[in-house]
Amino acid sequence: MIRMHDIIAKKQSGRELTEEDIAFFVKGVTDGSIPDYQASALLMAIWFKGMSEEETILLTECLADSGEINELQSIKGKKVDKHSTGGVGDKVSLIVGPMVAAANRGVYVPKMAGRGLGFTGGTLDKLESCKGVNTEISAEEFEAIVRELGFCIAGQSKRLAPAESRLSAIRDVTCTDNSIPLIAAGVMSKKLTGGSECIVLDVKCGSGSFCKTQRDALELARLMVRIGAKAKRKTVALITDMSAPLGCAVGNSVELIEAIRVLEGRGDERLTELCITVAANMLYAANVADYEACFAIAEETLYDGSALDKLAQLVERLGGDKRYIYDTNLFEESNVTAMLVAEKSGYISKIDAYEVGRAAALLGAGRERIGGAIDHTAGIILNKRVGDRIEEGEALATLQASSIERAQSGMEHLFRAVTIGKEKPKIEKIVLRVI
Amino acid sequence: MIRMHDIIAKKQSGRELTEEDIAFFVKGVTDGSIPDYQASALLMAIWFKGMSEEETILLTECLADSGEINELQSIKGKKVDKHSTGGVGDKVSLIVGPMVAAANRGVYVPKMAGRGLGFTGGTLDKLESCKGVNTEISAEEFEAIVRELGFCIAGQSKRLAPAESRLSAIRDVTCTDNSIPLIAAGVMSKKLTGGSECIVLDVKCGSGSFCKTQRDALELARLMVRIGAKAKRKTVALITDMSAPLGCAVGNSVELIEAIRVLEGRGDERLTELCITVAANMLYAANVADYEACFAIAEETLYDGSALDKLAQLVERLGGDKRYIYDTNLFEESNVTAMLVAEKSGYISKIDAYEVGRAAALLGAGRERIGGAIDHTAGIILNKRVGDRIEEGEALATLQASSIERAQSGMEHLFRAVTIGKEKPKIEKIVLRVI
Repeated sequence: MIRMHDIIAKKQSGRELTEEDIAFFVKGVTDGSIPDYQASALLMAIWFKGMSEEETILLTECLADSGEINELQSIKGKKVDKHSTGGVGDKVSLIVGPMVAAANRGVYVPKMAGRGLGFTGGTLDKLESCKGVNTEISAEEFEAIVRELGFCIAGQSKRLAPAESRLSAIRDVTCTDNSIPLIAAGVMSKKLTGGSECIVLDVKCGSGSFCKTQRDALELARLMVRIGAKAKRKTVALITDMSAPLGCAVGNSVELIEAIRVLEGRGDERLTELCITVAANMLYAANVADYEACFAIAEETLYDGSALDKLAQLVERLGGDKRYIYDTNLFEESNVTAMLVAEKSGYISKIDAYEVGRAAALLGAGRERIGGAIDHTAGIILNKRVGDRIEEGEALATLQASSIERAQSGMEHLFRAVTIGKEKPKIEKIVLRVI
Repeated sequence: MIRMHDIIAKKQSGRELTEEDIAFFVKGVTDGSIPDYQASALLMAIWFKGMSEEETILLTECLADSGEINELQSIKGKKVDKHSTGGVGDKVSLIVGPMVAAANRGVYVPKMAGRGLGFTGGTLDKLESCKGVNTEISAEEFEAIVRELGFCIAGQSKRLAPAESRLSAIRDVTCTDNSIPLIAAGVMSKKLTGGSECIVLDVKCGSGSFCKTQRDALELARLMVRIGAKAKRKTVALITDMSAPLGCAVGNSVELIEAIRVLEGRGDERLTELCITVAANMLYAANVADYEACFAIAEETLYDGSALDKLAQLVERLGGDKRYIYDTNLFEESNVTAMLVAEKSGYISKIDAYEVGRAAALLGAGRERIGGAIDHTAGIILNKRVGDRIEEGEALATLQASSIERAQSGMEHLFRAVTIGKEKPKIEKIVLRVI
């Protein structure tokens, strides 16, 4: 007879869990016989002691098998999934889904997304900042939208990998989200249930992401590519920079608005470059053309308005008001807007993504706990990016919050996140490696 | 603004928690604003990273202050509390409470006890194996019983250190019970709310207890004595052996029956020695007489029947049937009784307390989770102790369980817990040190 107590003790002492242990744990999380506080204790022990590649693969398989598999049999083209390990200001899914669909090359993007990453809401929360949008739809509805529009972004069906959903929610609020084996098993188990033949992974690297160093990001990327290959999925991983926030908006509605700017072809340059690269890799993984041609195809969708139209169509299909997509002035405003101005002149030498994320959380953009509320209007808009020149007294960022207290506490934090130096800094490339 | 997430992250990285952090955590556990899964994550991080003496003292104080303080103002004599860090077969509280009261020297024992230690039930569960006993009584009732009988053993009032009760229940099922600072803060916070001027601590040492080594036991004992002294309590700690189970019974009703044997003056020798030593230290701490005289006073209560009468009086006051105390044949029997016989002749060289505890848990004597059920009749009675001669085919132990499956799984485990050697082993003293 296996007892959860013994499994926790085994991992505490650094021993490897067996297939039986892992199956027992995942089954108990699925059927609720293991309470959250025991699951969270084991997750923390794994955070400290790690897992071997074999344990990670076993965990991935058990999590994927904890519910149904989405076959998406009615969809006849190639299906490509995309996943980011998450960072501050990451709105890439909202952009590349529409881009690949707009490319109109028979490649489908069935993108199941999540909520809450500690700092701000997740992709679903961002999308739901548009009035009326409801991303909690049935599996049938999801498949129908993918078939009709070429893509869909919606909540993960509760029938797919339910154990992973539960663990992910717990990890989110217990500081165990940044464990390489847990990230790998979590991401890949979801991807394996999603019915896609190809998977493009955006592995973030830098202060605003789980992997602070390129070494960690590489380890995570390689582990996920190996898990994908073992499950016969074509898996590509990009390692991309997350030392500074991605783009200039961090929050929920402000990020959706920034995604719209990129889809209008007038978004932040680095963010746009990343989105085109991810979309190109998705098309390339699906064998649409050679990589350069895929890049050009992806880029074109931003300048002919077709990708923006795809997002508007999705919003409409999810019950939302698509006028918001074409007129972002319609988005609800926050109660309080505050401006952070530069104390001295110089060049922006650093905008620490982690600290900006913390500031956004203090403004109310994130979740404190499972199922907690977030403020869709709370967030930060950076007027300057790393390398920009700024003058004393010039506006550095705009902050949005529901109360003056929140605005102040976010402001104090954001102030410390930005460093102004005398020299123009060297700027890292946004895409660091492709694996 | 403090966030639980940040407190967990701070401890994960090994940094010290501030007074503000600890107060926030304890307040959130008390009022329920911090969910159990976050508390359990922090407890596991503390398990790995430890706490400084300062953090431990702060935690103790916050936990003690999380509810009311039991002044016991109506009791005019010296109040002495007793606590064991818990081991396999530890029924000492059930024996020394009656002994000190029976000594009739104006020393009162207001003993609040707990439930469930993973392997078997706690002192309350053992006491409740006697028909009709209910240990969940009001603080007023508790004080009245102490005043009348000179002692009481009952459930901790929910108004005393409620945060500690919650944390203790979580630690019990998440393998974080064996952390020295958490044990020290847990034990001492409860003791500080109990209204006693003197505290006698029985710190167990060996495989069946939290402290596996004398070094750990010493560290824990000294830490608790320092915390006690800082709070102006006269605090004594004994370090006692827990490499083998204490006495011969491990379970719930079987342990109460063994306690009765000791109170009848015909119990296991080592267990009896330990009980007299603990009771003598309690009388000595209360300045009753010199230590040798206290020892003699305590011993006498076992042979004149006065201590047994005290237990019977308590059982009656708690709604129980006191005939059980004078006739243990009345106790309910288990469905299944099995016998473990020796496979070879020789001397019992080892009875591993931890493994015996695990066997008792497999029989059903323990709790799987907070509030879970236990089987009062399940347990083990060892016929032999370490150092005893045994012949092939002779009965080594009797096992009691509710089903054949449980009996078998307990049997297999118990078999491995006992080592039979050729030479008569050297036997350690039961009381290793007094601090």
